[in-house]
Amino acid sequence: MTPPLIAVTMGDPAGIGPEIIAKSFAQTNFHAENRIIVLGDVAILERAAKLLDLPLRVNAIQEPEDATFEPGSMDVRAVTDLGEDLPFGKLDARAGDAAFRYVERAIELASAGRVDAIATAPLNKEALHLAGHKYPGHTEILAELTGTKNYAMMLVTDELNVIHVSTHVSLREAIDRAQPERELAVIRLAHESLRKLGVENPKVAVAGINPHAGENGLFGSEDAERIAPAVAAAVEEGIDASGPHPPDTVMMRARTGAFDIVVVQYHDQGHIPIKLMGFDTGVNVTVGLPFFRTSVDHGTAFDIAGTGKADPTSLHAALALARTLAGAEERAEERS
Amino acid sequence: MTPPLIAVTMGDPAGIGPEIIAKSFAQTNFHAENRIIVLGDVAILERAAKLLDLPLRVNAIQEPEDATFEPGSMDVRAVTDLGEDLPFGKLDARAGDAAFRYVERAIELASAGRVDAIATAPLNKEALHLAGHKYPGHTEILAELTGTKNYAMMLVTDELNVIHVSTHVSLREAIDRAQPERELAVIRLAHESLRKLGVENPKVAVAGINPHAGENGLFGSEDAERIAPAVAAAVEEGIDASGPHPPDTVMMRARTGAFDIVVVQYHDQGHIPIKLMGFDTGVNVTVGLPFFRTSVDHGTAFDIAGTGKADPTSLHAALALARTLAGAEERAEERS
Repeated sequence: MTPPLIAVTMGDPAGIGPEIIAKSFAQTNFHAENRIIVLGDVAILERAAKLLDLPLRVNAIQEPEDATFEPGSMDVRAVTDLGEDLPFGKLDARAGDAAFRYVERAIELASAGRVDAIATAPLNKEALHLAGHKYPGHTEILAELTGTKNYAMMLVTDELNVIHVSTHVSLREAIDRAQPERELAVIRLAHESLRKLGVENPKVAVAGINPHAGENGLFGSEDAERIAPAVAAAVEEGIDASGPHPPDTVMMRARTGAFDIVVVQYHDQGHIPIKLMGFDTGVNVTVGLPFFRTSVDHGTAFDIAGTGKADPTSLHAALALARTLAGAEERAEERS
Repeated sequence: MTPPLIAVTMGDPAGIGPEIIAKSFAQTNFHAENRIIVLGDVAILERAAKLLDLPLRVNAIQEPEDATFEPGSMDVRAVTDLGEDLPFGKLDARAGDAAFRYVERAIELASAGRVDAIATAPLNKEALHLAGHKYPGHTEILAELTGTKNYAMMLVTDELNVIHVSTHVSLREAIDRAQPERELAVIRLAHESLRKLGVENPKVAVAGINPHAGENGLFGSEDAERIAPAVAAAVEEGIDASGPHPPDTVMMRARTGAFDIVVVQYHDQGHIPIKLMGFDTGVNVTVGLPFFRTSVDHGTAFDIAGTGKADPTSLHAALALARTLAGAEERAEERS
């Protein structure tokens, strides 16, 4: 079977995105496993290959169909033409605008079914805002440009998977957003995504909002009133869901195999355990869009941009996960 | 120097408390390192020693001053006389009342300066409530019976220490309780406690409430309005405090040595990372009382009570930490 076609966005041109992309393409076997096109900037990517001393040719293409996937080359759809003297590691409105446009183009291609999934290199939020694109991050751009309401951020690692009911809102607003309909939607997304990752009947644990999941109403009523009914509805649909569980112990239980994924109620409930475990292969996945989007779990690292030190491990993991998820989608379509 | 005198409470008599206490006292060198009296029940402790087949004599005492600390013996102040046929592992109002009375007696002794610190074996909250003592747990009993307002729960492990601005309240109420005065009080408690643990100039990191510590007001105003002023006031007092830090990354930074302790804003912000790391030597310390109180980090484990399987590791750690904290207090008094 032909591997799915993934579009990788170059991220902020002043950050480490171009370097981790060039490092990935230069690896042996990369072309055998992957069909990937880059949405980015030819001069910037050539600069990255040169600074890394990699024998890597940039093949400029107009359309995804023009890609040749030849070993030693990188198929690049030029979205910008910044020139190679853009400074490394500096906030720059041109770079922020460029990063936005790579994502915008990727969304167009994926929405039209011309690529199967998107993987994103890091953008810099401040640069994005300098360029007038006032989004908190990739996820919100993707949601708005695809007109998606029921999306969610999933963090996938070797030991623990979490999916968020809410992310970039205040903790107060996170509590307000934890409503039964949203809980049920996220439980369904958890179930469907894990199935695409190859888990036949995923065990979905839902973490509570309050300490001890509310301790029978002693510490808040949200767990009983808003989460428990959604779990019951999911079970009614045949999903192996349980909860609300005490948030502090459910993570360890999931880590040691009792559950396949934990539905977490707010940004830090999911991010604290994932970041604490220090995974360098963690991948951020946006689920619920018309296509899958995976992302590296690090930022633009302006402090090391242009030094060649950037580590492509997280990008590898993001590309591999995009391939798995999009491949599952294709396989399902073939079956149907 | 004579080791400080620690009172250990037996916890719920139907749980594993008596067994982990007996196991500890039977260990070689235990008496050389420690001066400990048990507040509990003679028949129940004798039953535990017998079931574990330990050559351990119970020395019933009336007053702490009567303790002999002889190897092979356990000095016990009998607070209850339940008889040895109390069932193992069953909720029992008599057991709940007994557990309360051990703590009450320990508080009397510590408040009068007749013992230097308290270590507590686990009580069962449901049994406590059956007996009419409507407290969420040990900490609230200790606070009420000593008339203490500014106390805090600290979790101490080998790699990460956290101290809580609030614990057993709903998440909404936790946000309400994060007020500048309380933040400053907890920062001071963190500083003082770490100094007693031997850190000369403790680095105190304060975690934010909101994702990314509010991201300059984008995700809530509490971090800037309530936490930042308290950190500034603490710095003004000469404390090496910083924050509010993004909650998801500050834990890993503290774990890898950047900070000595993290002030956490709500129960699960501190409990998720500690429990995820799966420490079996974690100790729960109540700080801010007129004396220190340490506790095992597990429950009554009714499912294994009476089987001899209970692991005394956490009790050892709790006793060792009580000794260190109370010893620091004594050393400071001798210097002054």
